[in-house]
Amino acid sequence: MPFTYNRTVRFSDTDAAGLVYFANVLSICHEAYEASLEASSINMKDFFSNTSVAFPIVHADVDFFRPMFCGDKLAISLIPQKVGVDKFEIAYEVVVDNVMVAKAVTRHVCIEVSSRSKRELSGELMRWLETNRRDAESAERRRSREAM
Amino acid sequence: MPFTYNRTVRFSDTDAAGLVYFANVLSICHEAYEASLEASSINMKDFFSNTSVAFPIVHADVDFFRPMFCGDKLAISLIPQKVGVDKFEIAYEVVVDNVMVAKAVTRHVCIEVSSRSKRELSGELMRWLETNRRDAESAERRRSREAM
Amino acid sequence: MPFTYNRTVRFSDTDAAGLVYFANVLSICHEAYEASLEASSINMKDFFSNTSVAFPIVHADVDFFRPMFCGDKLAISLIPQKVGVDKFEIAYEVVVDNVMVAKAVTRHVCIEVSSRSKRELSGELMRWLETNRRDAESAERRRSREAM
Amino acid sequence: MPFTYNRTVRFSDTDAAGLVYFANVLSICHEAYEASLEASSINMKDFFSNTSVAFPIVHADVDFFRPMFCGDKLAISLIPQKVGVDKFEIAYEVVVDNVMVAKAVTRHVCIEVSSRSKRELSGELMRWLETNRRDAESAERRRSREAM
Repeated sequence: MPFTYNRTVRFSDTDAAGLVYFANVLSICHEAYEASLEASSINMKDFFSNTSVAFPIVHADVDFFRPMFCGDKLAISLIPQKVGVDKFEIAYEVVVDNVMVAKAVTRHVCIEVSSRSKRELSGELMRWLETNRRDAESAERRRSREAM
Repeated sequence: MPFTYNRTVRFSDTDAAGLVYFANVLSICHEAYEASLEASSINMKDFFSNTSVAFPIVHADVDFFRPMFCGDKLAISLIPQKVGVDKFEIAYEVVVDNVMVAKAVTRHVCIEVSSRSKRELSGELMRWLETNRRDAESAERRRSREAM
Repeated sequence: MPFTYNRTVRFSDTDAAGLVYFANVLSICHEAYEASLEASSINMKDFFSNTSVAFPIVHADVDFFRPMFCGDKLAISLIPQKVGVDKFEIAYEVVVDNVMVAKAVTRHVCIEVSSRSKRELSGELMRWLETNRRDAESAERRRSREAM
Repeated sequence: MPFTYNRTVRFSDTDAAGLVYFANVLSICHEAYEASLEASSINMKDFFSNTSVAFPIVHADVDFFRPMFCGDKLAISLIPQKVGVDKFEIAYEVVVDNVMVAKAVTRHVCIEVSSRSKRELSGELMRWLETNRRDAESAERRRSREAM
């Protein structure tokens, strides 16, 4: 099963149109990424304020299918994938009541903070990628079997 | 027991000083208020985008005792109290590892949205106030007994 | 000249990595869109909390080329374009000291709020699209001439 | 004259009640503080991600008198004051169309980042306090004269 993060839409996520403000959906996806890293015992404080290695986002995109309202119970599942020696990508699906309401992608590069030059993905991150990839694949296989 | 909301500090809560951005602590307290309303079966979408009755915040204050970092596990407990026919106040305590890191208060008035004139607290809100007040009082009594 | 919005990076835009939090770049682009609508004398309050017609974002993407820091002076230029009877897209370029630091796109549909069904772009919005398109084209032509 | 920061309410500042989300008013006040520091030629990036000295907020409060809407033109004036060898306070007034809509205070301490122990306010900050205090006083005197 892909890692799934449950999150209630909060008042501060919304805007005057009464819905979740568009950019906040990407923040919520990033929370799912953080929760998934934590589930692999990665220390948040070290990971996100590391002064030697960092994984900045170089690209993000998001598609919205349905509006999200205050109080909605979101289930965000994510599938990360290595896309180069120094890059990975995460695909997110945001679901409310079994209906997909949004889809997003973030692409990250691994850099040395001082020089901001690229470097190979760290062992810690490789393990996280493998665990989550495997989880996602076994979910995929199960779904294919069920579909037969 | 006062209602307690558990919340992990997320990367988007932090600022370039490496800590939770001060105003976000009030947002996190507001999330605790929302979670407490939900625990009383109050519908979030109706409550927060109601076009007839609303409970805007007229005052807020917050004191910070310790820095909060990405990944910190916050426990926010809240005690609401009626302070007038048309007003209530919520006191929040933010705790990390049994240490109080921040304290906050929000004061709310009940208004009719169209005229923005004050009106008596609704029955729904009165029930929420009573439930949470009672819970907080029994916790208080228990703590006093334990202290004897 | 394409419409340009000037914006200083604020502390609240940043995260614990010391840079602008990725999703906030999309918010800043949205501010540029708002400033551009205002420059066409469109009333913000009516436009964004209109209960009959709205222009929700159905897609957004963003690419990051350089980190942005607290205090950086951003110049965000935008070029909107009609992409269907009920759709428009806005391309944004975020520049610091004449260097492009990020690029983004938002795609919007025009809907009737009550039914959330699509409808033709309003006259007000068409005028805004034409003005900004024309401005962008004349800048384009000038740039071509200068290049000759 | 006290330093005044002009700021248009943006869509991302609002919530599903159609107004500025309460905690965002404190963020907007903090922007005014940043603009005032910049006006004294203080480098934002250094000031806010300084690894030796920092000025964390230990207290904040805010009172709301009128709702603020998307597109509202806010004028935020601020008066800082030294309140101890290692502390200062800033009083903010948020005005729309000559009507005060909110009032806020932030209290800051000067700390050495590594030990998080208090230390005396830096020379740079003392100069900023004096400049802004003097500006505010001369405005006060002018107002008194006008009232005579």
